[in-house]
Amino acid sequence: MAKFMGRVEFPCTIELGKGLEGAITNITKIGYVDGQEGHLVYRGYSIEDLCENSNYEEVAYLLIYGNLPTASQLADFESKMRAERTLPDEVKELIKSLPHDCHPMNALQAAVAAMGCMDHDGLEVTRHVSNPKESVDVERDVAVRILAQTRNAAAAIARVRKGGDILDPNPELDFTANYLYMMSGEIPDETRRRVMDVCLILQADHGMNASTFTAMVVHSSLADMYSTIAAAIGSLRGPLHGGANEAALADIQSIGTPDKAKEWVASRFAQNEKIIGFGHRVYKALDPRAVVLKGHAERLCREHGFNDLYESAATVEKEVTTRMEAAGKKIYPNVDFYSGLVYHALGFPTPQFPVIFAVARTAGWVARVLEYLPENRIFRPRAVYDGAVDQKVVPINQR
Amino acid sequence: MAKFMGRVEFPCTIELGKGLEGAITNITKIGYVDGQEGHLVYRGYSIEDLCENSNYEEVAYLLIYGNLPTASQLADFESKMRAERTLPDEVKELIKSLPHDCHPMNALQAAVAAMGCMDHDGLEVTRHVSNPKESVDVERDVAVRILAQTRNAAAAIARVRKGGDILDPNPELDFTANYLYMMSGEIPDETRRRVMDVCLILQADHGMNASTFTAMVVHSSLADMYSTIAAAIGSLRGPLHGGANEAALADIQSIGTPDKAKEWVASRFAQNEKIIGFGHRVYKALDPRAVVLKGHAERLCREHGFNDLYESAATVEKEVTTRMEAAGKKIYPNVDFYSGLVYHALGFPTPQFPVIFAVARTAGWVARVLEYLPENRIFRPRAVYDGAVDQKVVPINQR
Repeated sequence: MAKFMGRVEFPCTIELGKGLEGAITNITKIGYVDGQEGHLVYRGYSIEDLCENSNYEEVAYLLIYGNLPTASQLADFESKMRAERTLPDEVKELIKSLPHDCHPMNALQAAVAAMGCMDHDGLEVTRHVSNPKESVDVERDVAVRILAQTRNAAAAIARVRKGGDILDPNPELDFTANYLYMMSGEIPDETRRRVMDVCLILQADHGMNASTFTAMVVHSSLADMYSTIAAAIGSLRGPLHGGANEAALADIQSIGTPDKAKEWVASRFAQNEKIIGFGHRVYKALDPRAVVLKGHAERLCREHGFNDLYESAATVEKEVTTRMEAAGKKIYPNVDFYSGLVYHALGFPTPQFPVIFAVARTAGWVARVLEYLPENRIFRPRAVYDGAVDQKVVPINQR
Repeated sequence: MAKFMGRVEFPCTIELGKGLEGAITNITKIGYVDGQEGHLVYRGYSIEDLCENSNYEEVAYLLIYGNLPTASQLADFESKMRAERTLPDEVKELIKSLPHDCHPMNALQAAVAAMGCMDHDGLEVTRHVSNPKESVDVERDVAVRILAQTRNAAAAIARVRKGGDILDPNPELDFTANYLYMMSGEIPDETRRRVMDVCLILQADHGMNASTFTAMVVHSSLADMYSTIAAAIGSLRGPLHGGANEAALADIQSIGTPDKAKEWVASRFAQNEKIIGFGHRVYKALDPRAVVLKGHAERLCREHGFNDLYESAATVEKEVTTRMEAAGKKIYPNVDFYSGLVYHALGFPTPQFPVIFAVARTAGWVARVLEYLPENRIFRPRAVYDGAVDQKVVPINQR
C-alpha cells in the first residue's frame, strides 16, 4: 500500500519534519497525490481520465459532492451557480476603485472578503454541532455560490485592468467559457475553452497543499466560508505556492533566446541557486499535471509565435534534468513550469496566473473544508519555546 | 522541564492527535503557554508583570523586536505607526459601503486585504532568500504599518456602525487611547484606557493558536504581510476561536437573572451541551488571562450597572466548576468567559469583541511570522487517503 493511504487512528506516532512534513491532518476521500509513482486522483479518478473525458464543472461537482453528476445533478449545480448572475454592486465598485497595478491576488482576496459582507445568509449559517449533516448541506450551497462568484470577481479584476467594463456571466456558456468571456468580452472558441478547462481541472485539488491547509485551519474555528476562501487566496498568493508559475515564466523569459539557456542553467548551478519550476516536496516522480500540460504548452507556443520561449524552456528542462541525473538525482519539471507557458501563450498577463489557479482550486478548498466539518476539531499544533524565562519588567528610563 | 519547552531537532518522533494536537510547528522565543501550571509569558515576561508595569505599545514592540523598548526605541516605533496617520480613501469608502449589519470581522478582513492593494511598497517586498535578515527588516516595517492601520480600520468599522464619521488618529494619544478615541469620538479617561490596555496586552499572543498558525501557514508561501493578516482575521472570526467571547456573553445574557443561573447550568449538563467559556485545549490549570480579567470584570460590571450579569456569570462559574469537581474533573473559566463581560461593561457591541481581539493579536501574528521567515519552510502536512481507486469516467448519459 502506498504511503499516506489507508486508515489511521488518532493518536498515532509519526516522524515529523520541518514545515509539518509527515504530519497528518485528517482522513480524506477527496483526492490523493502519489508522489512516488506520479499519480494524482480526484475521488478515485485519474486526472488524465478526467481531463480527457470530463470538464471542470463536472470535476468541481465530483470534488464537492463525491460523485460525477448525472445530467439532472449537473443541471441543478449549474442553476445554483447561475443564481449568482452578477457580483454585488459594492464588490464591483471595490474592484474598480483598487489600483490597477496592485497584484490581482490581493484584489481577489479583498473582493471575496467583501462578498462575504454582502451574503447575509451565507454568514449567518448556524452550525448545528449536534447535527453536522444539516450544517454541511447549508454550507455546501454557500460554497457553490462562492465558486461562481470567485470566478466572476477574478474575471472582473482582469477585465478592469484592461480598461474594460465588468461583464456579467452569459447564461448560455459553461463555467470555463464564461470565465474566458468575462475576462475578454469575447466568447471563446472551443480549442481555447478546452485548454482552459484542462488547466482548471489540473489545478482543482492537490492534497494538503498550503492554501488548502489554510482553508482547513481557518474553517476549523467554524469561520464562515467567505473568510475561509479569502484566507486560502492569501496563501496561494505566495511565490512558493500559487506564484511559482509567474516566477518560472519570468525566469524563462529572462533567458532571451534558446541558445543562452544552457549557459543560464550553468550559471544558476554555479551560484547554487534554486531553479523555480523543478522538483516538488511530494513528487519524486514526474508531476502528472506537468505531463498533461507539456503537450499543450508546446502546441500553443508554436501556434501563437512563442517558439523561442518554448525552445528555451525545453533546453532548460533538458539541461537541469541531465545535470541532476549526472549528480545521481532525479528531478523533473513540475506543473508550474508548464502552466506558465500555457497561460502566456493563451495571452494572459503574468500576474493573472495565480488568480486562475485560485478560481480552479476553490473547488478543492471548499470540498475539503466541507468534508472535515462533521468531524471538526480546531487545528492547534504547538511551537516549542526556547526563549528567556523569569524576566522582570524594569521602568523604561532604566532600560 | 515543562512540555513544549527546550530544543527540538527535526525530524523528530511525536505522538499526533486530531487537530494536529502534539505537532510542532517551529522553535520560538516569542511566547510560551504553560497549560499545566497556568502561566503565560511573552519573551520571558509574565503577562501579570506586563499588565502591571507596561503597556500595549511596549508589549507589541517586545513581541515584534524581542526586547522591551528604550525611550528612543519606543519613540521610533510610535513615529513609524504615526506615519500611517489615515486609512487610504479607498479603504474608507469600502468600509462605508459595506452593509452595517454584516459581521465586523468580515468587514475587517476585507479592509485589511484592500489596504494591501494600496501599499505598493509593502506588497513588492523582494524577499532575499539568500539574505533573510534584510528581508525581515523590510517586512518588519510593513508589519508595524499594518498594526497601526488594522487598528484604524477596526475603529472605522465600529464608528460607521454607530452612524459616525471615520476619524483619523489623534497624534497626542497612544495606541490604545487612539483606538478608543477613533471608535467613540471621545478621548478616554485613564481608567478606561488602562482597562482596554490590559485587555489588548492579554490578547496580544497565545502560542500556536489557530489564527497565529493560519498566519504562519499563509506567510510560509512567502505571501505578503497583508494577505497574511487578512487570512488570520478570517480564522479568528470563528466561534471556536475569536468568536468565543461573543458566544459566552450571549449565553450569560440569555440566563436573564442570577437566580436562574443554577437551573440553566443543570439543563446544559442534562442535555450534555458544551458550556462556552470553560476549559481550553492547552490550559489544564486556571487560564492566567482569566485571573487578571476576573477582577476587572467584577469591578466594571458593578460600576456600569451590570450587577445581575456579573452575578449570573459568577453563579455559572461556581456551578460548573463544582459539578465538574464532583465528577473528578478540574475545569475553569477561560479568557473568553471574562473578556466578554469586560467589553460589554465598557459599552462595546458584542460583534466588536473579536475585532478588538484581532487588533491586539496582530502584534503576535506579525512577530511569529517574522521569526519564522529566516528559516522559512512552507507548511505542507498530508491528508491520508481512504477513498476510491481505479474509477473510470463514464459518459454523463450512462451515469
